[in-house]
Amino acid sequence: MGTKRQIKLGAILHGVGGNISGWRHPDAITDASVNFELYKKWTQKAEEGKFDFIFIADGLYITEKSIPHFLNRFEPITILSALAAVSSKIGLVGTLSTSYSEPFTVARQFASMDMISHGRAGWNVVTSPLEGSALNYGKVEQQHPSHPERYRIANEYLGVTTGLWDSWEDDAFVRDKESGIFFDPSKMHTLNHKGEYFSVKGPLNIARSKQGQPVIFQAGASESGRNFAAKWANAIFTGQETLDEAKLYYDDVKGRAKALGRNPDEIVIMPGIGPILGRTQEEAERKYEEIANLVSIDKALDFLGRFYEHHDFSQYPLDEPFPDLGSLGRNSFQSATDRMKAWAKEEGLTLRQVALRVATPKPTFLGTPETVAEKLEAWFEAGAADGFIVGAATPRGLEEFVDHVVPILQQRRLFREEYEADTLRGNLGLPIPENRYTKHRQVVAQG
Amino acid sequence: MGTKRQIKLGAILHGVGGNISGWRHPDAITDASVNFELYKKWTQKAEEGKFDFIFIADGLYITEKSIPHFLNRFEPITILSALAAVSSKIGLVGTLSTSYSEPFTVARQFASMDMISHGRAGWNVVTSPLEGSALNYGKVEQQHPSHPERYRIANEYLGVTTGLWDSWEDDAFVRDKESGIFFDPSKMHTLNHKGEYFSVKGPLNIARSKQGQPVIFQAGASESGRNFAAKWANAIFTGQETLDEAKLYYDDVKGRAKALGRNPDEIVIMPGIGPILGRTQEEAERKYEEIANLVSIDKALDFLGRFYEHHDFSQYPLDEPFPDLGSLGRNSFQSATDRMKAWAKEEGLTLRQVALRVATPKPTFLGTPETVAEKLEAWFEAGAADGFIVGAATPRGLEEFVDHVVPILQQRRLFREEYEADTLRGNLGLPIPENRYTKHRQVVAQG
Repeated sequence: MGTKRQIKLGAILHGVGGNISGWRHPDAITDASVNFELYKKWTQKAEEGKFDFIFIADGLYITEKSIPHFLNRFEPITILSALAAVSSKIGLVGTLSTSYSEPFTVARQFASMDMISHGRAGWNVVTSPLEGSALNYGKVEQQHPSHPERYRIANEYLGVTTGLWDSWEDDAFVRDKESGIFFDPSKMHTLNHKGEYFSVKGPLNIARSKQGQPVIFQAGASESGRNFAAKWANAIFTGQETLDEAKLYYDDVKGRAKALGRNPDEIVIMPGIGPILGRTQEEAERKYEEIANLVSIDKALDFLGRFYEHHDFSQYPLDEPFPDLGSLGRNSFQSATDRMKAWAKEEGLTLRQVALRVATPKPTFLGTPETVAEKLEAWFEAGAADGFIVGAATPRGLEEFVDHVVPILQQRRLFREEYEADTLRGNLGLPIPENRYTKHRQVVAQG
Repeated sequence: MGTKRQIKLGAILHGVGGNISGWRHPDAITDASVNFELYKKWTQKAEEGKFDFIFIADGLYITEKSIPHFLNRFEPITILSALAAVSSKIGLVGTLSTSYSEPFTVARQFASMDMISHGRAGWNVVTSPLEGSALNYGKVEQQHPSHPERYRIANEYLGVTTGLWDSWEDDAFVRDKESGIFFDPSKMHTLNHKGEYFSVKGPLNIARSKQGQPVIFQAGASESGRNFAAKWANAIFTGQETLDEAKLYYDDVKGRAKALGRNPDEIVIMPGIGPILGRTQEEAERKYEEIANLVSIDKALDFLGRFYEHHDFSQYPLDEPFPDLGSLGRNSFQSATDRMKAWAKEEGLTLRQVALRVATPKPTFLGTPETVAEKLEAWFEAGAADGFIVGAATPRGLEEFVDHVVPILQQRRLFREEYEADTLRGNLGLPIPENRYTKHRQVVAQG
């Protein structure tokens, strides 16, 4: 009996919002980014909607010009651990940088969250796009590592963390009161990693969870990012705006994974979407205008600057062509800044137009629940996405999506009515990774 | 109206236990160290008993010889964040090392836990006693820092974290939808720390909680440890075994704090105790024997080795005087190893006797609930303790303490019947630390 391929859904929870001025919306709760009760309510709503996971993004450096949500928000490991205790099926995915952390601690914190949640943890691996991050991590003399070097570090880092996660075979803990044997030492494994960037002995002081290892997410879209994702990612948070672009990206990354000997079905590709829903198309359009009008051009320029190493855009005339910035932005948000430069060139946009488009992009998924559901189906069926990560563009966006879009997808048998599993891997349709040491023993036994 | 000074109580939750073989007890739950439901039940029991806080200890390096609880346990930040979501009044205190972490991340994780729990977080600052920790943190070429250097690092580290915690004045977030003003930039403060060990710019991307800053705990008993505690600690987890020793320690640390210009009442000194309760003294004694008999001499020697940089004690004859180890152990658990050496010398103990005493020390607080309560009162009234941290020596020890000892203390008006506050500082009777920048402004305004 073949099971119909179904859409996967994640919900990015981002407090007062990804939009600079979303907090000014009449329905917005203005302390949302540090309001635990609200995060709990959202998580439980997403679980009611049978979402695969919630997602917490992150950043390590702020200035006066940062958007409100970035200034004062929960740290991912802590908020996800707290949400684990008030949910039971939904996955818990958080961003953490490999450029400014220690692999032993990070492996441990995700493994512990995975154990607390009984196999629902996911780690979105990032390499930190912002140069400012170095200023908070005592590397003043050193430069923020270059884009390719950050990915070399990340690659070694993932080798260490996934190795540490296999420190204990699944049957290592015997716990036999009679004999006094707590564990089988032959099933405890010491990593002894000595590499270019890290030396980590191990073993990790926590065992594997029910799902084996936390799920690895990745969001890099650059050349190095794609190769990294093809090698390590179980799921990808991507950001294309048209079906054609999304399909190109999808085929490219799945092709890279296949070339590395991986099964491309074991990488779940999920574009981020910021849907706006209305009872009519016109109502949805009005809701978009309402948000867009909250943004001032000054704030939009500040927001733009963040993608370009905090460059000050107020120095340029607003209604002339987007300035030539050379390579500025290529060592931070490489793919995003490349895209903006391409828009400006191809469409002849002014600085004002680029800034407003970046600050309040008009969502691709905007309309009635029916039209949005149809578009999701079209992307999914065209092989441009395995699922979507929903980032609400309006304060009630997540609730509206759960109440109005999810039932349509369920009716069309495009989305689950009940969770298939109680682990994140299980729901995403990903296999439990075999412990590398257990595999090795089998090979030895056969040989 | 004067309020009677009352005992403060904490509960250390340590899974299968601090004892090497406690997991073999007939009532023990053998996966306790990674059993979230059990940690939740314990936390809720401690909250029912109006305890000030639960406490999670930690370590960063294991070997085959580590005690069962250390091999496979929850990481403090994650388990405490999860427990924050299923409790409402009790404090949440966790150990984290300043020798193998980044102050920006640690300040953020504790601040976030403090925000999630509405002001119930505490940080037990340690400098990592084990040389092995360096092997998991890529410092192979470097040595594990020496004992005094670790405290110099910790001192600078605390300056950074407490500074970052004041990044935002309490009224910095205006959040006025009408004017579009989200925050007042004059109330956001950039630390700009450049020291011997750390360079951290700030600001921190999270505001202060209801209790101002997480409560600082400390447990160092050495000379450097005491000075550090006198300078930074709001509460101290100490470990004396007799009332006289405890009183000496108490007076010494309060004296050091006073000499530094601090109010000694603002340091809560709490010896750790591992009470064993029985309906009669004989039943309590029997319960101790039952536990002590679960420990084999081999395991006791392994356990002893951990205090001496994983030294192998099986090479010495068991029934001859405790071997001369020179300075071994002085750069790890300095005060503990000094004490063992003193016992051996003063009491002429053999290796077997020292190993068994260390592995299964007979609790000072052992007897009926009445006799244990009386002893707690005696220590408290003698000025040897402001409270106690209860580490259950038997699987049901915490429940028994809450059900049988707490009511006696309450009857004697030595312990609260209801929480006085819903923050950890509030319950411990500690003031909310004023934001350093707000103070500065007042001084300027007066001048």
